[in-house]
Amino acid sequence: MATGTRIRLDPEARRAQLVALGLEMLSTRSLDQLAIEDIAAAAGISRGLLFHYFPSKRDFHEAVVRAAAADLLTCTEPDRSLPYIEQLRAGVEAFVDYVVENRDSYVSLLRGAAGGDINLQAIFDETRSAIAARVVDGLGAETVPYQVRLAVRGWVAFGEEVILGWLSDPDPLLDRAGLCDMVHDALVALVGSAAPGFAVDLRERHHFG
Amino acid sequence: MATGTRIRLDPEARRAQLVALGLEMLSTRSLDQLAIEDIAAAAGISRGLLFHYFPSKRDFHEAVVRAAAADLLTCTEPDRSLPYIEQLRAGVEAFVDYVVENRDSYVSLLRGAAGGDINLQAIFDETRSAIAARVVDGLGAETVPYQVRLAVRGWVAFGEEVILGWLSDPDPLLDRAGLCDMVHDALVALVGSAAPGFAVDLRERHHFG
Repeated sequence: MATGTRIRLDPEARRAQLVALGLEMLSTRSLDQLAIEDIAAAAGISRGLLFHYFPSKRDFHEAVVRAAAADLLTCTEPDRSLPYIEQLRAGVEAFVDYVVENRDSYVSLLRGAAGGDINLQAIFDETRSAIAARVVDGLGAETVPYQVRLAVRGWVAFGEEVILGWLSDPDPLLDRAGLCDMVHDALVALVGSAAPGFAVDLRERHHFG
Repeated sequence: MATGTRIRLDPEARRAQLVALGLEMLSTRSLDQLAIEDIAAAAGISRGLLFHYFPSKRDFHEAVVRAAAADLLTCTEPDRSLPYIEQLRAGVEAFVDYVVENRDSYVSLLRGAAGGDINLQAIFDETRSAIAARVVDGLGAETVPYQVRLAVRGWVAFGEEVILGWLSDPDPLLDRAGLCDMVHDALVALVGSAAPGFAVDLRERHHFG
């Protein structure tokens, strides 16, 4: 088929194509810099057909953020057959690699969702909660103190900031493995600081720390 | 003067009035939910006069985010006459109180600036860097390892997330003082984890930790 020819796609494939385009376009442009015409043109469809799938730019933005969040969660899915300490390390490495490989879309779509719009905030909260819950579940403890749950959520934010800081201001003293160590060790330190008794118990159970 | 009467203000006062209105309106509405007409109406001025001060909604948004950032930095200004350990504690308390008292505008304007728009990202980065630099300066060390600078930046993100998590999902086990302790202790733990030798040195010098 020649370029520029309008290709007939079934609704699901068309939606996926539009979201994929959005992931690309919204990584480097904010929503109000993006004209609905540009998306339609890039997809080779009419403005009207685009509105059939996404009634407004905000709906489109929301679908794109949702897709980015699902992608992040898939890429960092833990392998529950591994011992806890290895799951955590693998999860940290997957998170580091995801942010490094998708820096622009991570910042624009996932970190960006933490701000103004209430629907995007909900996606941000669900995603951060899902990541924190995986880590908390992986602790293998029957009851996890409130402070530890809060600290794990904070640790995800710490990791995000440290990875983005490392990307924008790298140093030869810290390579990817060193960065992964730093993020991993920070969790051990933060759990120990938030609930010392609980951390001692974890250390005995999982060699955590 | 009767309500509804247009009040003559000098340019600086008018600009300040518009930014104050923006701080209020953009705390609970995203930029694309806010009509330029609403701001003009609330200020009792014409749409044309508003555009004289802010050529676009994005310019207006940027001015409002900049004002929120300046406000945060003023509220958390350290008292350099105090011993370092007390400065840090006072800074943590001021940060906690600021986020608690300005939750909506903090999330919408300051945290929100971390995302899509490149000009807002610059304000976000400057603000976070300024807070991190104060903490790093306060360590009173001649050279601060790269990992510690990175960890301090990450700690600011940790603190933000923990305070917002505590606000949205509070627990009777953790009051404001407990939250301040948790955020403070996390810095000690993170510096110790990122650079153990440096932390030992700090402990001897400042009773840090």
